[in-house]
Amino acid sequence: MNIEIKSENKSFDGLNRQYTHRSNTLDCDMQFGVFLPEKALQGNKLPVLFWLSGLTCTDENFMQKSGIQKIASKYNVIVVAPDTSPRGESVPDDVDKSYDFGLGAGFYINATQEPWKKNYQMYSYILEELIPLVDEHFPVDDTRFISGHSMGGHGALTIGLKNSELFKSISAFSPICNPSQVPWGIKAFSNYLGDDKNQWKKYDALELVKNNKPNLPILVDQGSDDVFYAEQLSTVSFQKQLNAYDSDQFSVRIQEGYDHSYYFIATFLEEHIKFHLKSL
Amino acid sequence: MNIEIKSENKSFDGLNRQYTHRSNTLDCDMQFGVFLPEKALQGNKLPVLFWLSGLTCTDENFMQKSGIQKIASKYNVIVVAPDTSPRGESVPDDVDKSYDFGLGAGFYINATQEPWKKNYQMYSYILEELIPLVDEHFPVDDTRFISGHSMGGHGALTIGLKNSELFKSISAFSPICNPSQVPWGIKAFSNYLGDDKNQWKKYDALELVKNNKPNLPILVDQGSDDVFYAEQLSTVSFQKQLNAYDSDQFSVRIQEGYDHSYYFIATFLEEHIKFHLKSL
Repeated sequence: MNIEIKSENKSFDGLNRQYTHRSNTLDCDMQFGVFLPEKALQGNKLPVLFWLSGLTCTDENFMQKSGIQKIASKYNVIVVAPDTSPRGESVPDDVDKSYDFGLGAGFYINATQEPWKKNYQMYSYILEELIPLVDEHFPVDDTRFISGHSMGGHGALTIGLKNSELFKSISAFSPICNPSQVPWGIKAFSNYLGDDKNQWKKYDALELVKNNKPNLPILVDQGSDDVFYAEQLSTVSFQKQLNAYDSDQFSVRIQEGYDHSYYFIATFLEEHIKFHLKSL
Repeated sequence: MNIEIKSENKSFDGLNRQYTHRSNTLDCDMQFGVFLPEKALQGNKLPVLFWLSGLTCTDENFMQKSGIQKIASKYNVIVVAPDTSPRGESVPDDVDKSYDFGLGAGFYINATQEPWKKNYQMYSYILEELIPLVDEHFPVDDTRFISGHSMGGHGALTIGLKNSELFKSISAFSPICNPSQVPWGIKAFSNYLGDDKNQWKKYDALELVKNNKPNLPILVDQGSDDVFYAEQLSTVSFQKQLNAYDSDQFSVRIQEGYDHSYYFIATFLEEHIKFHLKSL
């Protein structure tokens, strides 16, 4: 698989890069961000964190706003941040150009409905294209962590839970825990997946943990002042379900006064990296 | 002076806020960013860093991209980041809407020429309006630091050098050290100040240090791979001039491989805060 460097910035003795490549899975050109700590540039194999961003984001938001480079340099972790949907003029978008469906809102699922199914295959893109590509091009050991925010928190939880052999641990900020039951998820799933709600459950973190105890550590942080907390995120239901397993492997924390922004993510990101490394 | 909170985000136990206010000096509405560490919210008086941003920036870039909140929380410093020019429909802009003159490019000087002089008074805005406003509304002690990037590095150096009684120390990233002699500066100064180059010298850091040894500590960081290094920034001339004073109070460092971006600023920002605090 060919990839090309689009931009490169030295950062904390490492390199922050943006790459472009042709995605066969999504049938379009894609971009993703990578941070390589100095130790990786020196040829050492390091763990890799896959970060999935939220609605409206591209591959750049996390790399520009989270402060991850300082943390990843300190703890020697490679970071990979893909885009949030297929892109380009040939990719269909919501007729209303809304922020919560279509471009910038791929929901990390494989669409089965027209006109979406040709491009909107973000679930397979992450697993079958991005991970092999990262294994091929970067000095990663076999340690993968997955994390994300909001729609990307939903992506991290569902991809991690369904593929626990690939990841050591999952974390999420403000994830959409139960998309089948909330406005954002209902809009996206009914368009991408059609009306059969059994198909929706495959991509619903709460459904995935209901009858199956997760076999990898999970950390979730949720701000109490997040405007989407009550209507879209279902955090308390998810917390209750994990608590029912009575395991110290799972932690869902409500952070007093924090909101849905990158200011919240930046505040707790170092704790998430420490959590992932502790899982080893 | 009245100010209004436009937005507020909890960050590292402190609050990141954006304020709006009417500026009499600039004859327009202005915005600025503030970070208040937890200790400030508890009523403690803290030092304050004034950060001046570069061309094209608003009051938001530094607050969103530099990681300052983590550092300011750790070291207990209040941060104030003003916009880079007057704003609004009544404010004249460059006819070509260029990035390096007019809106987003106030150069922290007081314009004397038409049609700029009515609004483009950023030098007086910082000194006579923003500092008193900060003293009135926030729990600051009498310790002020000033720093900035590129055009804002020029602003920090010139405002700090000309008002050393107001500041304890100056730092800058990639500053325009000798605006009178480089394309960005020549374009801005000839428009804002007219053809009399004696007027330009008042706002030129290299000119200001030529015959007067600065009486406060100065730290400058400049990336060696900055695309503007050779043509616009005159760093080596400034470094030579400060070195001629043979004082450990002045340091101009060339950082190998770094560029002009926020990735560079984020990397060395904690060192700048430590430098400022050491000046006390």
